[in-house]
Amino acid sequence: MKIAISQLNYKIGDIDGNTAKILDAISKAKNENADLVIFSELAVCGYPPKDLLDYPNFIDRCEFAINLIGENSVDIGVIIGAPSWSKLDRGKKLYNSAFFYENKKLLKRIDKTLLPTYDVFDEYRYFESNKIFECVSFRGEKLAITICEDLWNIDDEKMYKLIPMDELQKDNPTLMINLSGSPYSYNHVEKRRNRMQQNAKIYSLPLCYVNQVGGNTDILFDGGSMFINKNGDIVEECTFYHEDFKLIEWSSGSVYPDNHQDYYDYDISLIHDALLMGIRDYFGKMGFKKAVIGSSGGIDSAVVHTLAAKALGGENVRAIMMPSKYSSEGSVNDAVALAKNLNSPYRIISIEQTVKSLNLTLEEEFEGLEEDVTEENIQARSRGVILMAISNKFGYIVLNTSNKSESAVGYSTLYGDMCGGLSVIGDLYKEQVYELARFMNRSSPVIPQEIIDKEPSAELRPNQKDSDSLPAYSVLDKILFHYIEEQKGWKEIVKLGIEEDLVRRIIRLVDKNEYKRFQASPTLRISHKAFGIGRQMPIVARYNH
Amino acid sequence: MKIAISQLNYKIGDIDGNTAKILDAISKAKNENADLVIFSELAVCGYPPKDLLDYPNFIDRCEFAINLIGENSVDIGVIIGAPSWSKLDRGKKLYNSAFFYENKKLLKRIDKTLLPTYDVFDEYRYFESNKIFECVSFRGEKLAITICEDLWNIDDEKMYKLIPMDELQKDNPTLMINLSGSPYSYNHVEKRRNRMQQNAKIYSLPLCYVNQVGGNTDILFDGGSMFINKNGDIVEECTFYHEDFKLIEWSSGSVYPDNHQDYYDYDISLIHDALLMGIRDYFGKMGFKKAVIGSSGGIDSAVVHTLAAKALGGENVRAIMMPSKYSSEGSVNDAVALAKNLNSPYRIISIEQTVKSLNLTLEEEFEGLEEDVTEENIQARSRGVILMAISNKFGYIVLNTSNKSESAVGYSTLYGDMCGGLSVIGDLYKEQVYELARFMNRSSPVIPQEIIDKEPSAELRPNQKDSDSLPAYSVLDKILFHYIEEQKGWKEIVKLGIEEDLVRRIIRLVDKNEYKRFQASPTLRISHKAFGIGRQMPIVARYNH
Repeated sequence: MKIAISQLNYKIGDIDGNTAKILDAISKAKNENADLVIFSELAVCGYPPKDLLDYPNFIDRCEFAINLIGENSVDIGVIIGAPSWSKLDRGKKLYNSAFFYENKKLLKRIDKTLLPTYDVFDEYRYFESNKIFECVSFRGEKLAITICEDLWNIDDEKMYKLIPMDELQKDNPTLMINLSGSPYSYNHVEKRRNRMQQNAKIYSLPLCYVNQVGGNTDILFDGGSMFINKNGDIVEECTFYHEDFKLIEWSSGSVYPDNHQDYYDYDISLIHDALLMGIRDYFGKMGFKKAVIGSSGGIDSAVVHTLAAKALGGENVRAIMMPSKYSSEGSVNDAVALAKNLNSPYRIISIEQTVKSLNLTLEEEFEGLEEDVTEENIQARSRGVILMAISNKFGYIVLNTSNKSESAVGYSTLYGDMCGGLSVIGDLYKEQVYELARFMNRSSPVIPQEIIDKEPSAELRPNQKDSDSLPAYSVLDKILFHYIEEQKGWKEIVKLGIEEDLVRRIIRLVDKNEYKRFQASPTLRISHKAFGIGRQMPIVARYNH
Repeated sequence: MKIAISQLNYKIGDIDGNTAKILDAISKAKNENADLVIFSELAVCGYPPKDLLDYPNFIDRCEFAINLIGENSVDIGVIIGAPSWSKLDRGKKLYNSAFFYENKKLLKRIDKTLLPTYDVFDEYRYFESNKIFECVSFRGEKLAITICEDLWNIDDEKMYKLIPMDELQKDNPTLMINLSGSPYSYNHVEKRRNRMQQNAKIYSLPLCYVNQVGGNTDILFDGGSMFINKNGDIVEECTFYHEDFKLIEWSSGSVYPDNHQDYYDYDISLIHDALLMGIRDYFGKMGFKKAVIGSSGGIDSAVVHTLAAKALGGENVRAIMMPSKYSSEGSVNDAVALAKNLNSPYRIISIEQTVKSLNLTLEEEFEGLEEDVTEENIQARSRGVILMAISNKFGYIVLNTSNKSESAVGYSTLYGDMCGGLSVIGDLYKEQVYELARFMNRSSPVIPQEIIDKEPSAELRPNQKDSDSLPAYSVLDKILFHYIEEQKGWKEIVKLGIEEDLVRRIIRLVDKNEYKRFQASPTLRISHKAFGIGRQMPIVARYNH
């Protein structure tokens, strides 16, 4: 049997565009004499469609597209993901389905059983769970078809009561097929591979695993579709971060050699590639070409500028240096040097005049009061207004340059440096930002070494340093990681060898800045617990972790 | 049997504070010789605790509090909601439970079966569903205890396959008890009553229904706990929007007369009260006393100012008038008159100087280009910076004054008039804002009639009127309601008698402004489909409804 894996980059909701891509891939598979072509989960509408699923006409149009795709299944089997009406008299109205067509005939509709509802996933919001298990006979083979999470309930700690493959196994399949919408995070690539290899070994069956690829706002899909033999070897693996099409010649019983590239659990090069894809797809799918960033001469904006230049072309990233009286001369020079290295247009626009006007305007209101963080925020917000004005005037998207460490503790100004359409490095702790800078500088140094070497500072008051009010980033990031990603309480973090007062102070800062993060821009997600939809904390609350 | 209903206002995550309140109510119930005291769903931690539930130590501390409450059940039955460890080897780790204690002994733990996961609800994110049904014998009665959604699967269209009361009925209960966390929306009050009355009638059993009360950021709980006799009459009903404690003397078989106040499905006075509670609790639970608002002399800021003054005291709301050269003199005068009526401190702070500085600062960048929406946004953002500076300096919370119509179509400036800690009327369409203004003016006119009568304008360019670019609000609000609340496509809305081009243009505006709303402040929810967590639309997407 000849199986084609079609790993595509879908635009959410663009049913016509996605269908056209799918029909193209079917033609290609036919030309290659494939028996079967497989697409990913909810391919017709793109994953995740979110509350578009609440619109009945959206489901109707997905069903219409599925029919059209079915009409194009002459001489080939087509397995494709789409939402479908459950038509149950009780239960949720929809299924997350895989449609299996051959010769214009629907051989079977397979519905997803395990509905991930945690972190960024919310599938029980829309879908009913399947409870019927049956394999599909096709050209001499028997296919056990499942959808994404259906193959993930094999850990020691099982999140669901059912194990769909245990049920399907009773029907004596010869091949497993899984349609997936599995997003990237830096510790997910190896985990996903391991789990799929484990499935092959548990059931002693080959597995054809098809994932989507592409960035959908904050969520990044890395692809990596694969064909695994029954011994658990990865025989074929699709590209990461790009569309791919792979043909697998497979006959029941044969074993093929392992053929996959090694990646490691934490690999800065994968984070780098994921972020590039995230930027590229945010702009590409929205129909924008150009970005504008506030370039301070600090490490964060330097890394964002460099990533954006790689994703969009240096000439498409406008850098605005906005010095105040507290900015060191070096800062502007470093930012300018970077812009030159990246071939980006730039302009130096002082905020002095605006800040002066604002302070004057507020003089009466603030009479007799000391300067404090208010005046620092006025600087940050003046910069925000300038960037947004340039965005409005030219249609450029403001890229936000905050990192995860500072948004965690709230060392950022709402409507100031928190502005932007997309946060590029908002899921990277400060130490990861440095790591990424060094990685991008490894062969030829693009980011001036001065930027990497200087001590971090917001430059909002004379001689300000981040270390005035925060611990070393190595310590801060450690506390944050264990609190945010690992959901530990302060006592457990103190046990890691960090001072109690510090741990509790940092945790309090994280908690009390929930209101700021609620209004943050979407953030490219690269960890298993990013700020945003995957971490929904109450704002008005009081809990001492 | 003497039953005490304890309708309390909990602070999310404040386990100690909530427990203290609960113990007080138990004492009170004991003093009244009650047999049983009942609290609402997840009372110990407050509803909804959101991702605090992901922290193991949070669950442990809830269990600790439950034990303490159990120790205080000498001579009285106590039924109280809290999360609990499921201890299953398969399935989600938690249950949404009701603990039933008497004389320091746990008579039973009842777990929730139907887990609402739609709109603002996301319970399957955390909880496993119960599948075991058993009543509890207590002092000669047999209690069928359920939690909130468990009693809601009785419509013709059933969202869940199971009907918990059908199962419990087999055990011959004599009384139904429901612990609830049921939020307000303007069409939910009557709906909730009807459903609970229906339950009483279907099972021919009295029902004791206990809801929580209070605002938790955006979600408003209105209370209205009730005791319903087996004929479906509401015998007792707790206050709306305030804590309450009611004793019910009940004996099996007796029928009591209907005793509830009538409310109607849509009642502006309830919306008014809900918003006051929302403001009061946002400030009270966060520990803030004072608000600041940008008061333009328009209807939106006038209504927000009036509501805030009623909730917090006029003297605690600082009004800032920020005229530009496009502001009519009337606008400032009207805003000042309102501030005087409300006894609020105010100041007129011109934005002219700041706008001039910003335009000058950007002159070179914008050389040779026409004025456009950029310059309008600069005005709105200058006002945002001023309000936020006052907020920073004095610790006042900025109340956002956007309405639902304008945030729907994106007629608002990100980081400008969209700024604020809480959006007060962001779930009210413009016509509802007028209705609310007239309602608050009904006995003595607080809002100057000029504000209500003038034609809506953003006053960002000469002689600008909302009607220059938008249809009449009666038409706009109708389109928006059917698109947002009713999930209709453009074809169905056109059938209501509105021009196709207009409908499609408005829908496109709603869709393309998703990116702005993503960064909006939390919004007090009064409808069944508010912007915010209850409506999660993709940002990077393309779907023509």
